[in-house]
Amino acid sequence: VSRIPFNVLLFDDFETLDAFGPAEIIGHASQYYELHYFSLSGGEIVSKQQVSVNTISLAEIATGVLLIPGGIGVRRLVTDTSYLETLKKLAEQAQFVLTVCTCSALLGKTGLLDGKAATSNKLAFDWVRETCPGVNWIRKARWVVDGKYYSSSGVSAGMDMTLGFLSDLHGDGLAQEVATRIEYLWNTDKTHDPFADT
Amino acid sequence: VSRIPFNVLLFDDFETLDAFGPAEIIGHASQYYELHYFSLSGGEIVSKQQVSVNTISLAEIATGVLLIPGGIGVRRLVTDTSYLETLKKLAEQAQFVLTVCTCSALLGKTGLLDGKAATSNKLAFDWVRETCPGVNWIRKARWVVDGKYYSSSGVSAGMDMTLGFLSDLHGDGLAQEVATRIEYLWNTDKTHDPFADT
Repeated sequence: VSRIPFNVLLFDDFETLDAFGPAEIIGHASQYYELHYFSLSGGEIVSKQQVSVNTISLAEIATGVLLIPGGIGVRRLVTDTSYLETLKKLAEQAQFVLTVCTCSALLGKTGLLDGKAATSNKLAFDWVRETCPGVNWIRKARWVVDGKYYSSSGVSAGMDMTLGFLSDLHGDGLAQEVATRIEYLWNTDKTHDPFADT
Repeated sequence: VSRIPFNVLLFDDFETLDAFGPAEIIGHASQYYELHYFSLSGGEIVSKQQVSVNTISLAEIATGVLLIPGGIGVRRLVTDTSYLETLKKLAEQAQFVLTVCTCSALLGKTGLLDGKAATSNKLAFDWVRETCPGVNWIRKARWVVDGKYYSSSGVSAGMDMTLGFLSDLHGDGLAQEVATRIEYLWNTDKTHDPFADT
């Protein structure tokens, strides 16, 4: 049985845990998914926390699940129309699209989330709302699912969302097993958001 | 004011979150620390979850805090006497040494933890205990501090430990602030270990 590509899209100044928290979890479901790390043109990408990662060019991507982190790098990309066009095509082709933190604003700028429910980082929520007024933003949510689009709150919430994604697709047993294996205290309730009022 | 080097030591098949969970947290305390990623000889290192990371050679390391992840790669290194000698020197010179997951067994093999308290991954605990019988292994602990040595339980526990480290050195206010910024539900009590009986 062939595994589904789980494609992580990186860009300079991405937030490290946004990408690698979910990747850690998906790596423990390797019976279903194979992880690949991409960037627009491939090559070296450096995270906000100075992790230098070697990536594959988007020219080589195969359809599967798309995960996109947030981070300060998003602020540049939301006005890059060429990048947004590429992202829109990618997201349309993907079976599922998972965004972490402020990346929901980046995806929102493609128009694909218009009229859909999504959440984002709590400290940047006003900026996110202004950037994409057409999205039905849910402030109090650890993560939100609308069709094939999963969006999470800030940074660490991406891990809760990814476990939720595994649970939705493969059953709660697998998600709980992965959480135990990585000794992660999973916030299983996507409406439980202790950071909504910060 | 110069910042303290926070040196993350990587090796092939390291567990991704063991390294990048703590790095994420330290990146939010950049007024105190600067992050660097090393490996024995420098160059490309690939994690168990297929993240390809560019690293600096240990020849260029400056004394500071040393963080070492665990992961399946540790199993090869515990019998590599040359690597253990290098690690011992590094750890002796470091101001603090933080180990995540099974890395406490790797550090234990240097003899530096003999007679000291430490913890490790719960699913590999028997292996860890057999590998380093001279260490005072604490099973029920999210993380353990003994002098300059911090050790955490499996994978995600490294984040709790790193916040604990920030709290010990710079006050609880900073640790809480970082946890909020990354929307992380910090398990602040190092004796609270829900995975001790797994």
